[in-house]
Amino acid sequence: MEKQHRTQMEQARAGVITSQMEQVASAEGCPPEYIRQEIAAGRVVITHNLRRNSAPVGIGRGLRTKVNANIGTSKDMLDVELELKKLHVALAAGADAIMDLSTGGDLRAIRRQVLEASTMPVGTVPIYQAVVDTVTKGKSIAQLDPEEIFDVIEEQAQDGVDFITVHCGVTQRVLERLKQDKRVLPLVSRGGTFLAEWMILNKRENPLYEQFERLVKIAKKYDVVLSLGDGLRPGAGVDATDRPQIQELITLGELTEIAWRQGVAVMIEGPGHVPLNQIEANVLLEKKLCKSAPFYVLGPLVTDSAPGYDHIVAAIGGAVAAAAGADFLCYVTPAEHLRLPTLEDVRLGVMATRIAAQAADVSLELPLAKKRDHEMSLARKTLNWQQQISLSLDPENTRELCADKLDSAGEVCSMCGEFCAIKKVKEFLG
Amino acid sequence: MEKQHRTQMEQARAGVITSQMEQVASAEGCPPEYIRQEIAAGRVVITHNLRRNSAPVGIGRGLRTKVNANIGTSKDMLDVELELKKLHVALAAGADAIMDLSTGGDLRAIRRQVLEASTMPVGTVPIYQAVVDTVTKGKSIAQLDPEEIFDVIEEQAQDGVDFITVHCGVTQRVLERLKQDKRVLPLVSRGGTFLAEWMILNKRENPLYEQFERLVKIAKKYDVVLSLGDGLRPGAGVDATDRPQIQELITLGELTEIAWRQGVAVMIEGPGHVPLNQIEANVLLEKKLCKSAPFYVLGPLVTDSAPGYDHIVAAIGGAVAAAAGADFLCYVTPAEHLRLPTLEDVRLGVMATRIAAQAADVSLELPLAKKRDHEMSLARKTLNWQQQISLSLDPENTRELCADKLDSAGEVCSMCGEFCAIKKVKEFLG
Repeated sequence: MEKQHRTQMEQARAGVITSQMEQVASAEGCPPEYIRQEIAAGRVVITHNLRRNSAPVGIGRGLRTKVNANIGTSKDMLDVELELKKLHVALAAGADAIMDLSTGGDLRAIRRQVLEASTMPVGTVPIYQAVVDTVTKGKSIAQLDPEEIFDVIEEQAQDGVDFITVHCGVTQRVLERLKQDKRVLPLVSRGGTFLAEWMILNKRENPLYEQFERLVKIAKKYDVVLSLGDGLRPGAGVDATDRPQIQELITLGELTEIAWRQGVAVMIEGPGHVPLNQIEANVLLEKKLCKSAPFYVLGPLVTDSAPGYDHIVAAIGGAVAAAAGADFLCYVTPAEHLRLPTLEDVRLGVMATRIAAQAADVSLELPLAKKRDHEMSLARKTLNWQQQISLSLDPENTRELCADKLDSAGEVCSMCGEFCAIKKVKEFLG
Repeated sequence: MEKQHRTQMEQARAGVITSQMEQVASAEGCPPEYIRQEIAAGRVVITHNLRRNSAPVGIGRGLRTKVNANIGTSKDMLDVELELKKLHVALAAGADAIMDLSTGGDLRAIRRQVLEASTMPVGTVPIYQAVVDTVTKGKSIAQLDPEEIFDVIEEQAQDGVDFITVHCGVTQRVLERLKQDKRVLPLVSRGGTFLAEWMILNKRENPLYEQFERLVKIAKKYDVVLSLGDGLRPGAGVDATDRPQIQELITLGELTEIAWRQGVAVMIEGPGHVPLNQIEANVLLEKKLCKSAPFYVLGPLVTDSAPGYDHIVAAIGGAVAAAAGADFLCYVTPAEHLRLPTLEDVRLGVMATRIAAQAADVSLELPLAKKRDHEMSLARKTLNWQQQISLSLDPENTRELCADKLDSAGEVCSMCGEFCAIKKVKEFLG
């Protein structure tokens, strides 16, 4: 007989507070019972494969906004060591999760190395491996056997992957809409494009949609969180919030409820390129159409015109999205749209996204985020540089930039010198 | 007899479209009559001293969001050549205006060099010079003679300064509030602090408030735009939107109407450190209390916890503020709170602020900003790298980052290689 209450969601519904829930509650500074209730309702997920011992990370309503960093090989840049270095740089910079998006080399071996090396949850996009396997065998994407997709998903779940992106909402109906409603960039999601190509060439429905119950069953077995991918995410601001995108989101909401009925946790992936004035509506739509399942956004990128600085573009969009209720931010690096990221790109991407997350958490009045900002302001008042360093999101960088001040704690610094406003004010306003 | 309709505002009210209005209209892609009407109503200003020939820049409702870069010597970093280099770096990066905040060395000579070197409008904070002159004579700030403040203002206006920051709203009433309503950081505005110190030690009212009509008269003579400084701008998120800040803003609104009655243009300076959820309210308050005078914000900084990355922190706040109606963004560099900015800090500060401005302008659906984003998306669709470079906010940086792709226009690049979503989609969706 199958063991009862295996997934976090099932256990939460049965009133059980798991050790993972306790760890999340402790990290977030909130009662374990709150975590249990929110997981039971689907508004919080813990990305934690039953087969793996990564740090349990809670994502969702009322919790600190989390940050994901993507790494991965490609055929033209097949350096596993470099990708593992990126992983370490991302974790050292404070990423809460890592996605391995490798498409080059021995994908199984690379994934297992990433899972081994990462102390934090690891996510994947299994369709990549299914496609690469097919192409490696000399076949075309159209010849991909749907069975292989499910085999790969089971294999990755068995390996311990904590969450998987599955583009279940790319349906024939959505593709029909895409033909009717012209976009500048019809599809920019790589996984979504693979599926669309397969569907169009074979004139068949998306297997991840058609056999969604089968997918749910695998996810349930290992307690893998399903991250329902947005294959229709806009790749240009001008395409944002259009009918194909929202049509897919409606479908993802329906699938969310099917997964929940089986006790399987779900996140919803979101845009993408979205002008600032449309972000709040996008978050609201996700929360309404998907019954408050955690929202995992890529960006959003609030302008198309700043390649080379897309970490800043995404920090603007991510902060606004998270302040409006998005729960999980996928980092964007300065390399986005231009090249594969370097180690420094990875570090800057994580830092910019953490800034967005902290700004959103302060906006949402999360106590721990507010406390950090408040303590930093007190350290500024007392001109306590050591304290300012340790409270910084990037202490090492702060230490470097204010190295000349460390001997002069409490004294004015070279920025304003004798005209230091903080010191002057202390003299007459206390 | 005095020449009639000297200031842009007076001429606008008299129905005259000046050559400056025409140039602004042309740059913004809107009818000259619109510019005239908005200037007459005080909702748009052109920073253009009658004595100088800087490019006329329009700031205000319906116009592109503008970016200011601060430069300036201090006693401990007295390298005029370096500051002039910063000026050139800022202009090359696309700054719309420069403020000379020098407090070290021969301030007159430095200012004249800055005015000479800058093709764009130049602003100053005259109280700095008044204080430095006093201190240089061996006197204390308390001994500063109010007459000297007005002399310095007249001198700077005569030199051709296009806009001046004057902290007219730091009144005894506001300081009283500041004593009642405790802040973590009572005052962080340097100019505001000088005045507060003088007022407290002398138990007298702020001369810039008491003799505001005199200030307006000087501004009118040279058509200098008065940028009413926010001496009470919060220096910590926890202090934002408090009674002292809003008390000062009410006063600035009253002074705005006095200046307008004399045909003198006004901008209102704004915060500062402000959590994301309070930015819209801050912009709305300014627009209501100050009758839609252009809003010039420093940041806002949406978290206190990211020193070393405050250009990103400010880009988040600036984008949200400008999308809500702020008109002019003062840059913040990565050096903020830590040290004086380097040339690279200046460049990054301008770029981050321009990104915020572009994101806001897209959000506000300004046609030129939308067009740029749209064209960039089309260049991505066609994998046209040259076009992507020339449409970038920082073409040079883009060129460097995608150097390897310039020979392969229209072809897939190394990022996704054979799995290029854009190329695949073209094959089957057209």
